[in-house]
Amino acid sequence: MPLIPSTLPAVLTPVLTPFHADGSVNTKALLKQCQWMESNGVGQAVFGTNSEANSLSAAQKMKTVEELILGGLNPAHMMPGTGACSVHDAVAMTRVAVKAKCAGVLMLPPFYYKEISDDGLFAFFAEVIEQVGDANLKIYAYNIPPITKITMSLALLERLFKTYPSTVIGIKDSSNDWPYTESVIKALAPGGFRVYAGSEAYMLRTIQAGGLGCISSLCNVQPKEIAELAAHWQASDAPQRDQALNKIRSIFAQFPMIPALKAATAHYSKDPNWARVRPPLMSLTSDQQKKLIADLNQVNFSMPGL
Amino acid sequence: MPLIPSTLPAVLTPVLTPFHADGSVNTKALLKQCQWMESNGVGQAVFGTNSEANSLSAAQKMKTVEELILGGLNPAHMMPGTGACSVHDAVAMTRVAVKAKCAGVLMLPPFYYKEISDDGLFAFFAEVIEQVGDANLKIYAYNIPPITKITMSLALLERLFKTYPSTVIGIKDSSNDWPYTESVIKALAPGGFRVYAGSEAYMLRTIQAGGLGCISSLCNVQPKEIAELAAHWQASDAPQRDQALNKIRSIFAQFPMIPALKAATAHYSKDPNWARVRPPLMSLTSDQQKKLIADLNQVNFSMPGL
Repeated sequence: MPLIPSTLPAVLTPVLTPFHADGSVNTKALLKQCQWMESNGVGQAVFGTNSEANSLSAAQKMKTVEELILGGLNPAHMMPGTGACSVHDAVAMTRVAVKAKCAGVLMLPPFYYKEISDDGLFAFFAEVIEQVGDANLKIYAYNIPPITKITMSLALLERLFKTYPSTVIGIKDSSNDWPYTESVIKALAPGGFRVYAGSEAYMLRTIQAGGLGCISSLCNVQPKEIAELAAHWQASDAPQRDQALNKIRSIFAQFPMIPALKAATAHYSKDPNWARVRPPLMSLTSDQQKKLIADLNQVNFSMPGL
Repeated sequence: MPLIPSTLPAVLTPVLTPFHADGSVNTKALLKQCQWMESNGVGQAVFGTNSEANSLSAAQKMKTVEELILGGLNPAHMMPGTGACSVHDAVAMTRVAVKAKCAGVLMLPPFYYKEISDDGLFAFFAEVIEQVGDANLKIYAYNIPPITKITMSLALLERLFKTYPSTVIGIKDSSNDWPYTESVIKALAPGGFRVYAGSEAYMLRTIQAGGLGCISSLCNVQPKEIAELAAHWQASDAPQRDQALNKIRSIFAQFPMIPALKAATAHYSKDPNWARVRPPLMSLTSDQQKKLIADLNQVNFSMPGL
């Protein structure tokens, strides 16, 4: 059985969120950034971890998604993050995304309590799905234990997919745990389940094993390169392309990732406002910025068309 | 210098939240429960961890706090939880509590990102304080690393207290790490900082060292006993009272704590609706409930006046 069909591309970006000085979302700049992704063949997973999604209220995110769609983005290429600790917020945000005809939503498990049971996580997703109550809802489970400290077990994913086979249709796996990712692909992709790696570092292995592609922080600064690697994963130069991306990633990884991606975006777009983050994140120091840009210049890094 | 004055009692309860079948807050039952706490000399830290606060949206919590005050609760004895991952939600909830004249608010650090800096946490609290912009705001930092996986360092607390000496006036410390708690009391209580233990298990030590009392899950079922121990911490029978509480706590600790406290409240109030929890928590199984009540009956446990 082939993977469940979707209009979503193989590569999506958890798009960085630009902020005004007062901390509100600069929707105009975000729209432009999403359009840049689109022009590079990359979908938009707005309000992911790299978007500082949880540093925004549900109300702020709902308003922004509506404005992006009104601004002309193609919802067939969008997978907004709509997870929350409360069913109430998750339902409200998911309804907005479904109403806007987004091809999918990326849903975190409730992430406040720790050491919770699969039954409890299942009950959360089930209640959100039943309350949204829309056949057009397509959920991608968002597994990111380095941050949530919660792992969505294979047994849980199997149960969700079996119970809601046309709703819980995939995962973004940011576990950085290849044996886990591989186990999910082997168990569920034959039934059509769509697996995205949470980093381009795992993309080739994910596609080779039967997954789709990736939704990765580095797509914020290398969208074209990552989309091309996904498209030509069987090409003879795929390992070289992969290594080139590894090199770029290792430069960013010297610093806190989100502030570093924003610093680069600020530099190459010539818009210093892009460097703003919301607390508890902090912008790179001036010295860190200089080192980042110097290192990127050394490898002839650029963000053409930005 | 004595501790900064406050109308808040030495013992507060992170009050369990009763839910209707549809998952909404049963405000009438919550009001009654808060009144029971009040009649036992215990303040109300509604919307703490035991209240399943983060399983509710900011909008739900703001509405409920307003309804509780309208219902006649004394805000001088209230410390609602108003922390959130986003400044936007934290500010909105805090404003409601301040407007309602609550004597304090209990504020979690933003808990999505991990391995964040003291600077980032300071920036979050600073922004919330500046945006609320009200001299009546009294914040108790809520340190609960077993759940948030974030520790509010002593250096961070010192910086907050020094920068906002009439606003960040205390802490609820649920670290279960006595050397940490003791270090906070030793460093900051001489300047007036108010330290509440996060469990009655640490209450005597906290008071002896110069802290106030506790804000503890077990207050949900033993308010009078804990308030009396706080009031008579120097009495000759204090160690015996402490041991009696240890015994009760060990019975509850056989099970997930919040569902167990709700099961006991359901049983002794003869209102089975109290057993409801919101996902990702799960109610005790029937067998667990029976074991809990049997064990409680063996020690002649009761909840008089409930």
